[in-house]
Amino acid sequence: MAKYEEVASDLIRYIHDHELEADDKLPSIQEMVDHYNVSKNTVLSALNDLERQGLIYQVRGSGVYVRGNTRKGYINLLNIGGFNSTLSQFKIESKILTLELVEPNEEAIENLKIEQPDKTKVYHVVRIRYIEGRPFGIEESYFDKDIIPYLSEDIASASIFDYITEDLEIPIGYGDHFLRVGRLKADEADQLQLNEGDPTLRTESIFHLHNGKPFDYSKITYHYEETQFFIQGTNYQYRY
Amino acid sequence: MAKYEEVASDLIRYIHDHELEADDKLPSIQEMVDHYNVSKNTVLSALNDLERQGLIYQVRGSGVYVRGNTRKGYINLLNIGGFNSTLSQFKIESKILTLELVEPNEEAIENLKIEQPDKTKVYHVVRIRYIEGRPFGIEESYFDKDIIPYLSEDIASASIFDYITEDLEIPIGYGDHFLRVGRLKADEADQLQLNEGDPTLRTESIFHLHNGKPFDYSKITYHYEETQFFIQGTNYQYRY
Repeated sequence: MAKYEEVASDLIRYIHDHELEADDKLPSIQEMVDHYNVSKNTVLSALNDLERQGLIYQVRGSGVYVRGNTRKGYINLLNIGGFNSTLSQFKIESKILTLELVEPNEEAIENLKIEQPDKTKVYHVVRIRYIEGRPFGIEESYFDKDIIPYLSEDIASASIFDYITEDLEIPIGYGDHFLRVGRLKADEADQLQLNEGDPTLRTESIFHLHNGKPFDYSKITYHYEETQFFIQGTNYQYRY
Repeated sequence: MAKYEEVASDLIRYIHDHELEADDKLPSIQEMVDHYNVSKNTVLSALNDLERQGLIYQVRGSGVYVRGNTRKGYINLLNIGGFNSTLSQFKIESKILTLELVEPNEEAIENLKIEQPDKTKVYHVVRIRYIEGRPFGIEESYFDKDIIPYLSEDIASASIFDYITEDLEIPIGYGDHFLRVGRLKADEADQLQLNEGDPTLRTESIFHLHNGKPFDYSKITYHYEETQFFIQGTNYQYRY
């Protein structure tokens, strides 16, 4: 890790540990220079980094401030820590409908970029997710067993993401997400306690390791009355 | 701009100019070092920067590759260049229903963080957006006149974002987006050529200057059959 990245990581911890909220002010750049005992350029690089991550904004001549993170109860679609993380203020539970080790089907092969389907197995997991006891989504996931060697009911009932990042210590690189609005099928409506044909948001998410290898392809069918979503834009996107 | 930022910007141009696509390989780190005549650390900082922006991924021992950007026809919710940018392969048109300079209402005051409502005017713009001649969304926007001093029918019929960034040369900082699925009201259904009660995705977007000041609050009601969405996750989000 470059020096400016260490400073950036520490500032993220600082914001988290001090529970700083939107528009709270960070220490001055000079204070950071003194505290971290690094050059002003290193601090500025760290701050530009955090600004691009959407964590802070800088007001010339005034200081550095924390960006608004989300509205309470909104699911942060860019938080790849799983629902337990983005909805941490609520009680999140799962009911496992399916947990099996199978040969990859077409969509698993395609989205997980599996090169040797005959030699590769995937965990197929279907869970109903509950918030405060109410169903808010049906999640169907495929995990590449070559990367996630073991899954159990206990793990799938809790947070698979915590298991992957903390127990397996696999650092998650990034996720790509695809969204579409549609109507619920009869069986989905039953599981979400809604009616057939009711509106729903369907998401597909592909989570990758840092080296670009996909390891988790998940589809979620959301309860349209129980869920709302937040996406925190970062800078530079307009350069695409 | 720090040296590594200049390299990063140039690499973004390189990817764009060479029309590189998903999994295309970039020049080697050594080639970048030679080409930009900078240190290897500077190149690595630039690459980490681009990786965090979701533009590339690095495979140790192999090289640097372009990340998949989007599926064709998907609206990139993090592209703040407007529909003309994210749907550039399609014909995008607008029909202006409303374009007026008014006193800010409650939601404009709140979302644009207007401090002196009695002294501030906002442009209120309502447009039906068309893709290839078919309506795909109803967009209602409020622009702070203190930042966007002038809007015309000509501008609103084209791309307001191009006008802001290219003509007014106002650099857009970042956007925050809030999503919710609901049902169409009768008048919305008429405008989108759907039926009352049909599913819809409703988004609220707040676009800020780099200094954190919001200048554009826009609400979009999407045609659920004409639209699908893409969100490209960036790294580090799991650190929140």
